[in-house]
Amino acid sequence: MRASEGNTQGRPPIRTVDLIRKKRLGGELSQGEIAFLIQGYCRGEIPDYQASAFLMAVAFRGMTSQEMAAMTEEMRGSGSVIDLADLPGRKVDKHSTGGVGDKTSLVIAPVVAAAGITVPMISGRGLAHTGGTLDKLEAIPGFNVRLSPERFKEILARVGACLIGQTEDLVPADRKLYALRDVTGTVDSHPLIATSIMSKKLAEGIDALVLDVKTGSGAFMKRSEDAETLARAMVAIGKSCGKRMVALMTDMNQPLGEYAGNSVEVLECLEVLKGRGTEDLVTLCRELSAYCLWFGEAVPDVDHGRKLFRELIDSGRALDKFREMVRAQEGDTAVVDDYSRLPRAHFESTILSPGQGYLESMDTEMIGLAIGVLGAGRQTIDSPIDHAVGVRFHKKIGDGLEKGEALCTVYYNDEARHAEARRRLIESYKFSPAPVERPELVKKVIS
Amino acid sequence: MRASEGNTQGRPPIRTVDLIRKKRLGGELSQGEIAFLIQGYCRGEIPDYQASAFLMAVAFRGMTSQEMAAMTEEMRGSGSVIDLADLPGRKVDKHSTGGVGDKTSLVIAPVVAAAGITVPMISGRGLAHTGGTLDKLEAIPGFNVRLSPERFKEILARVGACLIGQTEDLVPADRKLYALRDVTGTVDSHPLIATSIMSKKLAEGIDALVLDVKTGSGAFMKRSEDAETLARAMVAIGKSCGKRMVALMTDMNQPLGEYAGNSVEVLECLEVLKGRGTEDLVTLCRELSAYCLWFGEAVPDVDHGRKLFRELIDSGRALDKFREMVRAQEGDTAVVDDYSRLPRAHFESTILSPGQGYLESMDTEMIGLAIGVLGAGRQTIDSPIDHAVGVRFHKKIGDGLEKGEALCTVYYNDEARHAEARRRLIESYKFSPAPVERPELVKKVIS
Repeated sequence: MRASEGNTQGRPPIRTVDLIRKKRLGGELSQGEIAFLIQGYCRGEIPDYQASAFLMAVAFRGMTSQEMAAMTEEMRGSGSVIDLADLPGRKVDKHSTGGVGDKTSLVIAPVVAAAGITVPMISGRGLAHTGGTLDKLEAIPGFNVRLSPERFKEILARVGACLIGQTEDLVPADRKLYALRDVTGTVDSHPLIATSIMSKKLAEGIDALVLDVKTGSGAFMKRSEDAETLARAMVAIGKSCGKRMVALMTDMNQPLGEYAGNSVEVLECLEVLKGRGTEDLVTLCRELSAYCLWFGEAVPDVDHGRKLFRELIDSGRALDKFREMVRAQEGDTAVVDDYSRLPRAHFESTILSPGQGYLESMDTEMIGLAIGVLGAGRQTIDSPIDHAVGVRFHKKIGDGLEKGEALCTVYYNDEARHAEARRRLIESYKFSPAPVERPELVKKVIS
Repeated sequence: MRASEGNTQGRPPIRTVDLIRKKRLGGELSQGEIAFLIQGYCRGEIPDYQASAFLMAVAFRGMTSQEMAAMTEEMRGSGSVIDLADLPGRKVDKHSTGGVGDKTSLVIAPVVAAAGITVPMISGRGLAHTGGTLDKLEAIPGFNVRLSPERFKEILARVGACLIGQTEDLVPADRKLYALRDVTGTVDSHPLIATSIMSKKLAEGIDALVLDVKTGSGAFMKRSEDAETLARAMVAIGKSCGKRMVALMTDMNQPLGEYAGNSVEVLECLEVLKGRGTEDLVTLCRELSAYCLWFGEAVPDVDHGRKLFRELIDSGRALDKFREMVRAQEGDTAVVDDYSRLPRAHFESTILSPGQGYLESMDTEMIGLAIGVLGAGRQTIDSPIDHAVGVRFHKKIGDGLEKGEALCTVYYNDEARHAEARRRLIESYKFSPAPVERPELVKKVIS
């Protein structure tokens, strides 16, 4: 075992152990020092055992905005970067930190693209208790999220929006660092989450990014202070890389909208694109789209963005764009008008209110895990998922309840899974005899 | 890359990543959890990258006494342990955290053994700016510190004291962990230092341990709070392993005694054993010996220990024991009466006081490094050392000085090394026009 050493043009050699120690003692690393660490690690010159010690020191000491910006840039530069400079107009993306029923990408991408803005959206799979955009899209028969960077760019040029998965050559540093964090207990560190997300987003070739940072029982960040710290970190990183940035801190104390699952969420998004849908989902899609439209220079301010959102829905242009997107990505466009073409579960059951009162809270992480148990999420990274299963939520926090009223409907294909999911769903609900305040949807805007 | 997993009799499997995370979040690990980590690491089942993340988390969170005791026991149990149960009487050792001119082992071992107590002393080499007992002993022509455990035990049975180096099969966990700490910036962590020292000491088969924890400009722990934290940690570990323990926190703001080097320190110890020597060195040898004599049940209390120390010196019994030790370890016993048989430097030079006043302070770490530059210490682990070189200090902090009075004498063999060492020595001295208080030698006794 020996310390990695390196040399940078004429200066005294940098030693990895000294940088680890500097971070351990609370010092701020320079851009050159961070470049040394990230590049050295990617090249295999710095061993895992030094990288993991560094990550743990970061988990305790945090990072300054300058350090995070430098780390993000180095991670982004570790692989190929998508160059959209030759496409006309602005390139804007929206990213959410994840939750249950969080399906806004399927609405925002076609809305924003319908306004002539390019939306290069590289999305993820379901993780732990949360759903993933790619899994939802794959509920549409034939929909292909595994496209080459060339094809991605070609669709962006022609359609304006394209939603694909992470490619092998984008930000390899993040894959390597994430795998190490995963086995060394440093996944939930703000600066490490922020640099991981931002390095991937900046590799998309965007000009601006709208962040949806979730907080509450179904979010990764349960406490709003943690969510705000993360939101501020990501906004600072993006800005110091010259991007327009905003983060909306939004509520994840209950599932967003009416459905959680895969094909049921596609169906729900189509309803929003047709001018219907539940109020919370429509509101969040409108708010996030408004910032995207503003950043994309389709409107002079956010308020005009809200109006344009309405117009793009009402005129059917957003729905047309969704159809175009599905066609470009080899999906069955007929699902837009015929929901029966989406996978549908064989069975359904209803969970009823045990008494009179008000819905006080929902343990949304437990709900997400219940939906995973039904088969909508993966048990391991390679296991198949059942796109048909899911849950429909009939009641929101604050709603009044009569005894025996339907709380939610479970769509399932397997009786044993259903029994376990139902047990968890029932456990997730808490009731109050007295009226309960409804949680605020958009808690804070950080820019 | 994958998480190490294991199983302990029927309980759910322990995952390394969960234990790292538990420590990261400030939790206390159980004895079983620490056993899982240390044993797993030693068997190569837990990879370096998880061990280094754990060590970094410990560096931030610390460890409880229970955790440290468990870690010490597991480390000690990682290799063979010396079993002295069949030797009569008590087995007592003294351990110092290291300093400049810190030579008390060469006095204490024969004194305590002369009282019929067994002193199984496994010592170290010089490290950084500090000297090492083994290097000093090797200044005696022929002295052999590389003895097998069998020979070590045989000499202990016959002579009562034996001073050797770390053997390959004693506490291999410490060697593996120390190598990892060295390259991941976690060397100076109290619980990691404490468990490292204590695991090695407890592997000696002792009943009691007297610790000399140094603090000041020439110690590893510069701040007395750090030294006290470390002292308390080691005392707690030893006690929870059923050992009698005491730690004396002693001053290392100036070299101990009159000499620093290797053969010059042997010479100085012989002077103490002959009833002479400087006051600070004699006092510290007496205090540490007194606790050893008490713990070894040669006297009913520490004060009787101090008296017995005096008697063992005055009667010549301690000096006789030193001669026996040297003979048993193949050294030239004639050095005891003829110092010219010790390696002697070819040249000497004197550093003079630049003006009238008082000696205010000495940067003792810098002095230690200067002595290393002369050749008394190793530049790398394998480089040879020059036993002949060293420094004699004529003045202590608080001493009044006339301009031109000798501050110290440098014994050297190489002109270039001498020039560099001299520069550092001169720089290490600070003077005051006003009288200066002398530092207290024994600052605190922790038991």
